[in-house]
Amino acid sequence: MEHIISALVENKSGVLARVAGLFSGRGFNIDSLAVGRTEDKSVSRMTIVVQGDDAILEQVTKQLNKMIDVIKVWDLPQQDAVQRELLLVKIPVEGSRRSEILQIADIFGARVVDVTHRDLTLEMAGNPQTVSSILELLDNFGIKEIVRTGRIAIGRGERNL
Amino acid sequence: MEHIISALVENKSGVLARVAGLFSGRGFNIDSLAVGRTEDKSVSRMTIVVQGDDAILEQVTKQLNKMIDVIKVWDLPQQDAVQRELLLVKIPVEGSRRSEILQIADIFGARVVDVTHRDLTLEMAGNPQTVSSILELLDNFGIKEIVRTGRIAIGRGERNL
Repeated sequence: MEHIISALVENKSGVLARVAGLFSGRGFNIDSLAVGRTEDKSVSRMTIVVQGDDAILEQVTKQLNKMIDVIKVWDLPQQDAVQRELLLVKIPVEGSRRSEILQIADIFGARVVDVTHRDLTLEMAGNPQTVSSILELLDNFGIKEIVRTGRIAIGRGERNL
Repeated sequence: MEHIISALVENKSGVLARVAGLFSGRGFNIDSLAVGRTEDKSVSRMTIVVQGDDAILEQVTKQLNKMIDVIKVWDLPQQDAVQRELLLVKIPVEGSRRSEILQIADIFGARVVDVTHRDLTLEMAGNPQTVSSILELLDNFGIKEIVRTGRIAIGRGERNL
């Protein structure tokens, strides 16, 4: 099953390597990982998406919790999470195709962040399914480059880490 | 100096831990890291933001390039990069303050992604400075929770990895 692990960790050298090592040591491949700052500069928040056996993952989160630089860990249930990711995608534009691409961008709420005579770069934030949907459509135009942040998640309503 | 390292890597267990270990082994603290999928399911793209000595960082990127699971590395100059990150932020809403918060959201192009009687969750994509600016403003309302993706970057115009 897919799990979304949120962790508050000390913003120190080596913490990320140790956390990633804990997952790979148990054979988990990390689908996506995003680490960013929080309200407190000394603390970072990681969002890790992994697939795998529930029982083994429970052990991994317990081990995470015991790590000295890990402040808190949360295995956030899918139904309680607002999930989002950010996409940057560069598409070649040839003549009349530009307006087709802009129409698709408009439908998905994507924004143009860079443009040249040859290329168009779009930014889109959305849930992972929506990001995959726009990519499927843009694929017809020949995608040049994709950068995705990996997923972040926050608890719905009152739920928080 | 701040560097934005983009790397295409094999989507395999252990790669992330080895890459993160390479930076921490040289004493670099990773400011932010984002890993997501690319057009090719077997390949992930990492964006790593680090501060540090230019000469040592050059050695680290050379070592990265030599790693078997690393396909390509790019130290993307700031001026050639479109940089973006995604923010989810939960703010308590009390009576009249709701409309003030929604005004700020509107100015920054932030979207409401969840709402209860007590809380409001906003999503905002932007460059790191803009994300910091909205957070400064929202701080007056008492931020409950912040999740940031960490930065991603794509080359301006024709430049690509």
